[in-house]
Amino acid sequence: MAEAQHVLDAPSPEPRSGIYDADGYLAEDFLEPVAAAIEAEDAAFLRETVGPLHESELGDLLRNLDEDERQALVRLMGEEFDYTALTEVDEAIRLSIVEAMPNEQVAEALRELDSDDAVYILEDLPEDDRKEILAKLPFRERLRLRRSLEYPEESAGRRMQTEFVAVPPYWTVGQTIDYMRDEEDLPESFAQIFVVDPTFKLLGAVDLDRILRTRRPAKIEEIMHETRHAIPAETDQEEAAQIIEQYDLLSAAVVDENERLVGVLTIDDVIDIVQQEAEEDIRRLGGVGDEEISDTVVTAARSRFLWLFVNLATAILASLVIGLFDATIQQMVALAVLMPIVASMGGNAGTQTMTVAVRALASRELDIYNAARIVRREVMIGFLNGALFALVMGIVASLWFEDAALGQVIAIAMMVNMIAAALAGILIPLVLDHFGADPAIASGTFVTTVTDVVGFFAFLGLATWWFSG
Amino acid sequence: MAEAQHVLDAPSPEPRSGIYDADGYLAEDFLEPVAAAIEAEDAAFLRETVGPLHESELGDLLRNLDEDERQALVRLMGEEFDYTALTEVDEAIRLSIVEAMPNEQVAEALRELDSDDAVYILEDLPEDDRKEILAKLPFRERLRLRRSLEYPEESAGRRMQTEFVAVPPYWTVGQTIDYMRDEEDLPESFAQIFVVDPTFKLLGAVDLDRILRTRRPAKIEEIMHETRHAIPAETDQEEAAQIIEQYDLLSAAVVDENERLVGVLTIDDVIDIVQQEAEEDIRRLGGVGDEEISDTVVTAARSRFLWLFVNLATAILASLVIGLFDATIQQMVALAVLMPIVASMGGNAGTQTMTVAVRALASRELDIYNAARIVRREVMIGFLNGALFALVMGIVASLWFEDAALGQVIAIAMMVNMIAAALAGILIPLVLDHFGADPAIASGTFVTTVTDVVGFFAFLGLATWWFSG
Repeated sequence: MAEAQHVLDAPSPEPRSGIYDADGYLAEDFLEPVAAAIEAEDAAFLRETVGPLHESELGDLLRNLDEDERQALVRLMGEEFDYTALTEVDEAIRLSIVEAMPNEQVAEALRELDSDDAVYILEDLPEDDRKEILAKLPFRERLRLRRSLEYPEESAGRRMQTEFVAVPPYWTVGQTIDYMRDEEDLPESFAQIFVVDPTFKLLGAVDLDRILRTRRPAKIEEIMHETRHAIPAETDQEEAAQIIEQYDLLSAAVVDENERLVGVLTIDDVIDIVQQEAEEDIRRLGGVGDEEISDTVVTAARSRFLWLFVNLATAILASLVIGLFDATIQQMVALAVLMPIVASMGGNAGTQTMTVAVRALASRELDIYNAARIVRREVMIGFLNGALFALVMGIVASLWFEDAALGQVIAIAMMVNMIAAALAGILIPLVLDHFGADPAIASGTFVTTVTDVVGFFAFLGLATWWFSG
Repeated sequence: MAEAQHVLDAPSPEPRSGIYDADGYLAEDFLEPVAAAIEAEDAAFLRETVGPLHESELGDLLRNLDEDERQALVRLMGEEFDYTALTEVDEAIRLSIVEAMPNEQVAEALRELDSDDAVYILEDLPEDDRKEILAKLPFRERLRLRRSLEYPEESAGRRMQTEFVAVPPYWTVGQTIDYMRDEEDLPESFAQIFVVDPTFKLLGAVDLDRILRTRRPAKIEEIMHETRHAIPAETDQEEAAQIIEQYDLLSAAVVDENERLVGVLTIDDVIDIVQQEAEEDIRRLGGVGDEEISDTVVTAARSRFLWLFVNLATAILASLVIGLFDATIQQMVALAVLMPIVASMGGNAGTQTMTVAVRALASRELDIYNAARIVRREVMIGFLNGALFALVMGIVASLWFEDAALGQVIAIAMMVNMIAAALAGILIPLVLDHFGADPAIASGTFVTTVTDVVGFFAFLGLATWWFSG
């Protein structure tokens, strides 16, 4: 081992590099010198310290700097700046960096990137800048990027990498290995090679471990597997990710409308997509659309306004129901004190059912074949918990207001509203999904509207009938 | 191509195989004949139809059968049943199948699986069964599985695959390729080989594409890369997944406390983990713990009960606040009609802020360095939307009850509650996270408690002071 040029240190048991603290945040003793060097315009220090960072680490650093510092860092590092890091930060930060750069320099930077990363940066730019930057790229790269950009947003064609290795089926394993040893222009990394006919029509694929296990004279067509899972470029990215995930593929071929190989979707894209889609569901359930934490106050306020406005309309609807019974409330203020409890319990129970339903629809565990069974299940859960909380709340209300009749009224109303909550929680997502709407985005409001209206109506209506009867 | 044994069909443009319908659910004309064959005990038909399915497709089939059909299918298919499919269904289904099988047969089935899949099935079984099944396995496999099972639940050691390829650093690329061509006992698929010293201490790793690009005489130690990202086996699976994801690795080495290689965590496990963790966040935000849709009614009802019980306590707290002002309400029933609107708008605005905060904490975009800025941002958003909705609701209430003073009271209360919502929505997750609690699980209740209490108190308190002053 004495003459080896790449003698390595023993692997450190620390899984992340030293720039992070124990909680996984960037460490102060890394951030401070970097910020000081930016302030002092110390380009040499920055190239040495920031240059070797992984793109994701550089992304974390960018997130921790303010806008001026970011732009200064990019300027000071010059060609040493790894523009792949721009795919690791959110849109607002990416735009603030790219728009501060001359288009000439952006084009220069994009040439160094994989096509999927270049597309990722280009797609958010204003139309004019995008055109100008593309015009400054060499013909072949321009063509590739333009083709990706022509596919719809969030499609497999938009997310694919256009660099891949493709060989003809009659090559031997030996020829293929020799080709890979000689060829300079291979993708930076790959896990699979594709097999195509002379018109680039996809015939199959071979995983690299299969090539390494096979002797040189064997033909590629003998060891390739059928690519049943070739993905049409127009496919939505979520569906494409589901296919790769379902069949545990390391990468999947993307084909055009003539079944010709145009790109490859790799598993790290799939992880990003899976996370992005889960994120989207969480945000939609929480009523905050596509907001990012780096959005400005006005952008964020505007995007939340619509949801709050819908909620205001439904809250007024619930108030109109209360208004129907104002005479009863005046006679018996205890009703006003207790009514939010009935509505709130229904709202929570409905949200529980809805959460289960929305996720089961997303993972396709809930479909028209088992819908009836799941609806029955939810109603039974609503009945069980409804009965328990009716009992608890009936006793609490009887003792609190020393009025057994009031206890009975709230118990029945609670029971009714918990069953209504179960029905609304399961049926509303099912109906929305059936009509092609995303149940994550709208179910919440509808469900709580139902539980508010039913809750107030059942409790106040029953009380009116009971105490004036 | 005439003599090739593996002539392939052209790839179908259909990304999934024909057993699914256009919506991605299992097709009726696949399900019905299978169910009929199970009924008729037609083992030959089942082996032919179900045998070639991918494990995930078989998993989908199991989910679509009822318990008796599932057990009959496993029995009828005998050795043709792919037990890997048990890792694709949820715990309740997995247990109902495994517990219906004699332990002898389970042991037989586990021998065919990769170690990580075997562990996945074993870990949910009752202690006694697990011991008995392990005892029936050959010594080496028993040892491996037992070691994985000794690591904590949801750790890298529990999820790792113990089959991997490891070679010494002084081997040449040629030797390594020859070894892989000759060796029978390789993992089913792999994307990386590891480099170890004679005591199995991890020295580095080489991606397969690097081996294929390099000429035979080069030494492995010259092309290996340092495995900075070796993962200690006790690491929590979520943290391990974050490392693999952050550095776009195809797989990562798992090492024991002596830095010896004990297994490999592959990227498809990472996708499962990423999805599982996002799922967990969604469920916790929705108040439904670890419930699965195949859980029984009683199990599900019990797991939701606790959350509803906490909600009842907080709802009663809000009612106590209302009770303070019962005299005012009796004088002016309009207050009872309008008060749920103030509370509901605050609750929704708080949930929005909380959703953003919980996700930003999970992705480490929110930390102690930028917390002050994010809190300011949220308060400003609350102020903006608060002012808008105060104006809208002030006008609506004035016109509805023909009372300008009532409009002013609700406008001020709305403003106050929207700012309280912003503060609660951001500070509660931050504080929970600071004390090591999962903000997804508890923030929701705390936030709506704050907005209910502040909403009712501000509105009714202000009205009492205003109208009796």
